[in-house]
Amino acid sequence: MFTFDRIAQDGRARAGIFHTPHGDIPTPIFAPVGTQATVKSLTPAQLHELGASLVLSNTYHLYLRPGADLVEEMGGVHEFMQWPNPMLTDSGGFQVFSLSDMRKIDEDGVTFKSHIDGSTHRFTPEKAIAIEEQLGADIIMAFDECAPPLDRAYNERALARTHAWAERCKKAQKRSDQALFGIVQGGIFADLREQSAQFISSLDFPGHAIGGLSVGESKEDMNQMIEVVDAVLPENKPRYLMGVGSPEDQVNGIRRGIDIFDCVLPTRLARHGSAMTRTGRINLMNATNAHDKRPIDETCNCYACQHFTRAYIRHLIIAKEMLASTLISIHNIATLLNLVRDARTAIQAGAYDQFADEFLANYNKLQ
Amino acid sequence: MFTFDRIAQDGRARAGIFHTPHGDIPTPIFAPVGTQATVKSLTPAQLHELGASLVLSNTYHLYLRPGADLVEEMGGVHEFMQWPNPMLTDSGGFQVFSLSDMRKIDEDGVTFKSHIDGSTHRFTPEKAIAIEEQLGADIIMAFDECAPPLDRAYNERALARTHAWAERCKKAQKRSDQALFGIVQGGIFADLREQSAQFISSLDFPGHAIGGLSVGESKEDMNQMIEVVDAVLPENKPRYLMGVGSPEDQVNGIRRGIDIFDCVLPTRLARHGSAMTRTGRINLMNATNAHDKRPIDETCNCYACQHFTRAYIRHLIIAKEMLASTLISIHNIATLLNLVRDARTAIQAGAYDQFADEFLANYNKLQ
Repeated sequence: MFTFDRIAQDGRARAGIFHTPHGDIPTPIFAPVGTQATVKSLTPAQLHELGASLVLSNTYHLYLRPGADLVEEMGGVHEFMQWPNPMLTDSGGFQVFSLSDMRKIDEDGVTFKSHIDGSTHRFTPEKAIAIEEQLGADIIMAFDECAPPLDRAYNERALARTHAWAERCKKAQKRSDQALFGIVQGGIFADLREQSAQFISSLDFPGHAIGGLSVGESKEDMNQMIEVVDAVLPENKPRYLMGVGSPEDQVNGIRRGIDIFDCVLPTRLARHGSAMTRTGRINLMNATNAHDKRPIDETCNCYACQHFTRAYIRHLIIAKEMLASTLISIHNIATLLNLVRDARTAIQAGAYDQFADEFLANYNKLQ
Repeated sequence: MFTFDRIAQDGRARAGIFHTPHGDIPTPIFAPVGTQATVKSLTPAQLHELGASLVLSNTYHLYLRPGADLVEEMGGVHEFMQWPNPMLTDSGGFQVFSLSDMRKIDEDGVTFKSHIDGSTHRFTPEKAIAIEEQLGADIIMAFDECAPPLDRAYNERALARTHAWAERCKKAQKRSDQALFGIVQGGIFADLREQSAQFISSLDFPGHAIGGLSVGESKEDMNQMIEVVDAVLPENKPRYLMGVGSPEDQVNGIRRGIDIFDCVLPTRLARHGSAMTRTGRINLMNATNAHDKRPIDETCNCYACQHFTRAYIRHLIIAKEMLASTLISIHNIATLLNLVRDARTAIQAGAYDQFADEFLANYNKLQ
């Protein structure tokens, strides 16, 4: 059911198809994030029109509100939010560990307080998998610990837990129609990353993720860690770089063998009036856009760019109109989806390095 | 250019087509309101999918932000907001008079302070028409004074001004591709309303509006005033009941000869989690909807009702997700547009009274 067909390889970059019960995912792919079972400010119809494939939702958020029982009762997260295509849920680990002074870790799991009402809850590997099975996404993630990337001693302890928890997650899984991905951790320490990739690979998950990156370390460290892990993970299974999704990170990640990305950036930046393009970010609030009849990006084929001027979108931002978020989100997600589509085409043509070099040379040029 | 074809009459109710440079408006019609050149939380594509025809925008708001000069520079309000179908702008009078202690009226016009930054501005009949010509809607409204409905002495003075200003608006109009509608005022006083309808009719506008209703008077008073005015206004021109648009007001208005309605209610209620149906309003926040797998309205054909459960929409409201406003706005506008479409069909079938009686008998029934 969860086979991964590699259809082209160019250097370390790969083009493939990951088959899921809710359809095929062409890789490399960018997954928009629907934290609370909605990709903020967009309808599923708008996401579909963008050509989105995989959509991510967050276990921590859905567990707290509206509750995994309710989502299950409503037929699972696909049916609940009306996204008929592939979905992925994280394990809640990243959110829980981000609560810092509102959580307590032990070898068995984590006790934490809700950011909504302060109520106390507990996640263990078994509990996280049970919730993800209630939610019913196609790809579910093991419960791991995301440690501060630069703290060696902490990463060693956390990695032992993450590995023990990965085994417990695998044993806890009951549903066979969900692909459980293992997660490689290890901060910015090459030996820990290598050790983690070897251990996680040995558990024979149908796919692998790299966690704990893009959380404060340098771009060089991130790219090096991806390379270390890429050299160890089996080629015949998809690799998912969790929480990473800026255009340059995608281009660099694909070059290092990554197949799947997700990130809240396109919708979060949209809510702050910031547009993502292949040459860099544009602050649409800027007065230079006040009389600008051009679309956000003249090279973009999205609904926002095919219809609306920068002047109009700037007006919407200043007037605090919701449509601003919707239009910029459409554009930003289109930018990332078009980027992975073009990367895939370049890989198939054996021209990925040239594509990546040209992209990076143009990126961050002045608008 | 602005001919009004009456295609059916049933009692006082009429079905027609009003021809404009941006297309035909089938009447009776409900116009969604795009105050700041956007119908809140919807894209034009979503409005189009709803079958919307006429869309209203507010002169006062566009004049202050982004400014009529900018809208004109961008090609007018149709082009600016990308609504290619018919549009209407009010004159700004209603908003200016609503500013109460921030405005001062004289015989020549009104001086007022911006609700945005407190800056001082002045509207006269000539200025209002000049702005509406810059905005470029198909239907533009005369600058009138909306008086407190129950104050006889005030209404007498205000009516004299409104009539003088109507003549000045007509003289001020330069563009021939916009239909300038005159506005009948007179509070809840039948003789003033009759006098106003006679005077405004005598100026030979291509259409007429009834202003100053649904502003605090009783439903009985409103319906009586519509009847008084309906008996005077010429049959061969469209009648627009300004700012009125609840389902029951539309059904009652159509019965009394009204062709055009507009109202912020569907989008405003949506932002408060309230859905409009043919049997009454539903507060979707209500806990009774928490596990409800039904759509908002099982009889509705809109995108929201064809896809999403009440349980999901309630979750979106509680989680403060923008999609809640979008989905409920889609549904509420669909309710009002389906209502006027069905009313039109009933008029054409000579069965409007039965349609209206049945509607009113079912309205406000428990959900």
